[in-house]
Amino acid sequence: MPLFPQSVEELTDHFAKLPGIGRKGAVRLVFHLLEQEACDVRAFADAMVAAREKTVFCRECQNISDEPVCPICRDPERDGSLLCVVAEPRDVAAVERCREYNGRYHILHGVISPTRRKSPDDIRLKELLKRVERGGFQEVILATNPDTDGDTTALYIARLLRPFGAKVTRLAYGLPMGGHVEYADELTILRALDGRREV
Amino acid sequence: MPLFPQSVEELTDHFAKLPGIGRKGAVRLVFHLLEQEACDVRAFADAMVAAREKTVFCRECQNISDEPVCPICRDPERDGSLLCVVAEPRDVAAVERCREYNGRYHILHGVISPTRRKSPDDIRLKELLKRVERGGFQEVILATNPDTDGDTTALYIARLLRPFGAKVTRLAYGLPMGGHVEYADELTILRALDGRREV
Repeated sequence: MPLFPQSVEELTDHFAKLPGIGRKGAVRLVFHLLEQEACDVRAFADAMVAAREKTVFCRECQNISDEPVCPICRDPERDGSLLCVVAEPRDVAAVERCREYNGRYHILHGVISPTRRKSPDDIRLKELLKRVERGGFQEVILATNPDTDGDTTALYIARLLRPFGAKVTRLAYGLPMGGHVEYADELTILRALDGRREV
Repeated sequence: MPLFPQSVEELTDHFAKLPGIGRKGAVRLVFHLLEQEACDVRAFADAMVAAREKTVFCRECQNISDEPVCPICRDPERDGSLLCVVAEPRDVAAVERCREYNGRYHILHGVISPTRRKSPDDIRLKELLKRVERGGFQEVILATNPDTDGDTTALYIARLLRPFGAKVTRLAYGLPMGGHVEYADELTILRALDGRREV
């Protein structure tokens, strides 16, 4: 005898498949939803279908977009000689928040990772190569995460892009602003030392 | 200029309202869904609506059910003189897993909590009182969590049920099985000492 109604078990299965939720978390979310108004739950379900069906990947930068070319790629004020390569769409949001960068983006949708079996073919590298090949970029900034997979991916891309003549750079490593030397891990300190600058 | 399409922002808002998810977590889940097949996302959305619309609260025990009276309440093999009071439907699953208890349940859907502004009227206490009033229970086991709110609720219910004559008990406190005395917090040890038994 199942403990919960079939429909509840099925919804729990769907939630449990989401990354970082797990079975117990899924049960918690499902029971939260069951206590909400039916119209709110229907609105949530509709939003889910709408988001999936209305969005496409921008054919330039591969960011999620509701038009074939996204607003950033369409924006004529943006510096077309600068390209910032990031792993995920949410990384674009992080870079945009600093209100300093005014170039274009390219979203890889993942990083190369031998441990998680992600090969160069599993991320949007071909699209990046095509864009750089077309020319026009003076600098390509590799803004993948400062971890093993992010570094591997950056190194791999740097080597691929070398023949095209654009300058290829990587975000600086070091202590995060507001951080404490006392609490920084060894690798961060090592890299902060490595990249030290005269003041 | 919003960074993500409107439909993506809206879905993120829905996810961010779920307990324990937060804005960043919501963005993560949304982007995961956007990478799934459209038919899978539609199945998820359908399951959400189905679970909410097909389930009701059992009119006896208040557990979530797809029929007016849930399978446990309908089961004639269950001991009708025993009632276990829990805070949430998932607690029923936990008690059932131990395959020892064969009585009925009552689900409060919450606990009394001054800090979270949950009063006795916000949980299904009236329904509990009505059931106990009807008579037939020889023992009511209070199985709310062993924390401040759970204890408060158990104490409150114990006082309410006293006039009805049924024995009112509380789950034992103590060291969890497989736990280490070394790592147990003071309160647990205090309560384990308090409840010590001759061997």
